[in-house]
Amino acid sequence: MKKVAGGVTVAKGFKAAGQHVGLKRKRKDLAILMSEVPATVAGVFTTNVVKGAPVTWSHKVVSAGTPIKAVVINSGHANSCTGPQGDIDCVKMAEATALALGCAAEEVAVASTGYIGVQLPIDKICAGIPIVAGLLAATEEGGTAAAEAIRTTDLFTKQIAFQLDIDGTKVMIGGMAKGSGMVHPNMATMLAFVTTDINITQELLSLAMKESVCTTYNMISVDGDTSTNDMALVFANGLAGNKLIESADDKNFIIFKTALHTVNELLAKAVARDGEGATKFLEVSVIGSESREDAQKLAKSVVSSSLVKTALFGEDANWGRIIAALGRGGVNFDPSKLSISFDSDAGHLPLMCKGKPLVVNTNDAHKVLSEKDIRISIDMVAGGSEARAWGCDLSYDYVRINGAYRT
Amino acid sequence: MKKVAGGVTVAKGFKAAGQHVGLKRKRKDLAILMSEVPATVAGVFTTNVVKGAPVTWSHKVVSAGTPIKAVVINSGHANSCTGPQGDIDCVKMAEATALALGCAAEEVAVASTGYIGVQLPIDKICAGIPIVAGLLAATEEGGTAAAEAIRTTDLFTKQIAFQLDIDGTKVMIGGMAKGSGMVHPNMATMLAFVTTDINITQELLSLAMKESVCTTYNMISVDGDTSTNDMALVFANGLAGNKLIESADDKNFIIFKTALHTVNELLAKAVARDGEGATKFLEVSVIGSESREDAQKLAKSVVSSSLVKTALFGEDANWGRIIAALGRGGVNFDPSKLSISFDSDAGHLPLMCKGKPLVVNTNDAHKVLSEKDIRISIDMVAGGSEARAWGCDLSYDYVRINGAYRT
Repeated sequence: MKKVAGGVTVAKGFKAAGQHVGLKRKRKDLAILMSEVPATVAGVFTTNVVKGAPVTWSHKVVSAGTPIKAVVINSGHANSCTGPQGDIDCVKMAEATALALGCAAEEVAVASTGYIGVQLPIDKICAGIPIVAGLLAATEEGGTAAAEAIRTTDLFTKQIAFQLDIDGTKVMIGGMAKGSGMVHPNMATMLAFVTTDINITQELLSLAMKESVCTTYNMISVDGDTSTNDMALVFANGLAGNKLIESADDKNFIIFKTALHTVNELLAKAVARDGEGATKFLEVSVIGSESREDAQKLAKSVVSSSLVKTALFGEDANWGRIIAALGRGGVNFDPSKLSISFDSDAGHLPLMCKGKPLVVNTNDAHKVLSEKDIRISIDMVAGGSEARAWGCDLSYDYVRINGAYRT
Repeated sequence: MKKVAGGVTVAKGFKAAGQHVGLKRKRKDLAILMSEVPATVAGVFTTNVVKGAPVTWSHKVVSAGTPIKAVVINSGHANSCTGPQGDIDCVKMAEATALALGCAAEEVAVASTGYIGVQLPIDKICAGIPIVAGLLAATEEGGTAAAEAIRTTDLFTKQIAFQLDIDGTKVMIGGMAKGSGMVHPNMATMLAFVTTDINITQELLSLAMKESVCTTYNMISVDGDTSTNDMALVFANGLAGNKLIESADDKNFIIFKTALHTVNELLAKAVARDGEGATKFLEVSVIGSESREDAQKLAKSVVSSSLVKTALFGEDANWGRIIAALGRGGVNFDPSKLSISFDSDAGHLPLMCKGKPLVVNTNDAHKVLSEKDIRISIDMVAGGSEARAWGCDLSYDYVRINGAYRT
């Protein structure tokens, strides 16, 4: 598996484009991602009870189980809490894209991110769709333009790509994501789109995606809020020409799963790193847990604790807050067995060993915590399972970005 | 039921004192609250898996079901994560208090709040206990001194008291609480102590306290973290001389329950109002829910959302974040039925009516949200149950207080 430049357009037969069509002030706000031949698709959607119209539509499109052609994504407006008109506008986006690409509306997934509760400027979008369709390109530039157009308050564009070898056949996989959230209102909406030219059944594509999401996109936390519009889709169009992967026991399935998982994990981490107002990236690693579920609960409880996050912003080696967050994580454990440490490129800082607090040298702590990438390692000494979760610190800028109306 | 001045010393036979004994720099840091005759006691304790030594000790004392004499409380150090020495020191606090008061150590509950993971300066505490015991007084000053001594980063002292009439007998009830948290580390520890001279069985006292805690202390959120040291105790010494309340059907039990609940609710709200860095007090009221459990989940999800809290700080009528918080609350509901409004002393601001967003006038929004006390009212139109939760906004000062090491 070799890292290559680019994102959603590295795989054969995929084209993408992004353009400003007037939803945001200046920046790109409409993207189309398409496959020359219908592609097998799998996806996961927000668990929020309140779902934006595009989530309902795309869930239906993906659930049909048949190959689709494209996804159209707008930023600036979430098309959520927009009532029956929101559903109509969502269908209009699918129809306009279908018309431009020469396919059926049911072959077009839709995603939106931005303001909630405001009707889409659907005329601008429908006028923009043929323009963006005209720009579709299989180039790195096309993929980058799409990755730019799905951004909201993201500070950087998130894309990644790899080349695999499947029995001597070159297979490509790449993806793009956006996180962070809108300036107003901040929904911290996460969108991710992965494309690959591998030849695989829908069942296995779906299995690989669902397994991977549990330990990637579902293990990041910027502020604990779940958007009404979250969505992650993977498209596989088979154009690489490898022998169809149709068994979960096939070694090539394992290779693909690993590649898909790597793409998802890197995109998820990029979203966490770019959390609103973040000055530091945090990885919480829990090992020695009784079960993976326990480890995941504990890691998420720590990564999403406001007290841990502010301590991190303050570069404060505050293990008391870590223990308190573990203790309210919904998992029973023996505190007298716990070991906890901080790690960064500047060194290793043990805080607690088998339940015993260690004396922490302030200079050492300062050195380790002044880095941008911090890991908290926790050993529960209760079993063989582990999990990692990713997040960021809680800074003045988070409050400024999200309380922006008061000056 | 008549509000009166004072707190834990208004009920007959209760004495209190608070004094500086050297745990904090200058402020009072040790309190004793005692009853002249052994008092029936009931309590609730933190659900955090990691429990401070005083929680374990006091839970045992209360669970014995026999009357006790006193509680001793220190601020400055939490005596949590302090290993076997922490348990020994906790027993020493109980023993020193018992010696000073002439009772058994098993008749003394212990509570601590402050730094985690640091051994108690137990010699200072044991030297201070007889001094504080010497100051014990049945006066308002005694109660206030105790309420002051249990404070950490609390900006104000929290106490409240009422007089009831039970079949012509005057019964008094009063309480004190602390919340907010320590400057370092901030555990947002909540302690509450209620005293009454009512004559009631331990079973009914315990029943009334447990029922009340669910809808008072358990419905406040400052930052979603649960301390290792939370504790709420109620003492009833029977000195009012009313006929013993021994049946849950007794109308006097209802009168007492209401009074206890009022005391708990007012203390809980005072803790929320004094959340670290808080500039606004928030009440979230959910009505029309299918069950009380659902209503509580929904109210707590909104009151603890970082996005709702920052919007409140920004005085931003952001109903999108409220909806998103409801949607991730773990309760299924129909968004098209929801009505949502903001209320304050400056007016009523409807945001959504039966699922339809309303046009919000910016000036009206500004007027309503510029107040200090804000209520969010949510009607689920799904049943007859309701719940309220209390919290505060998320401000720059919260980040400053909790990230204090970085200047």
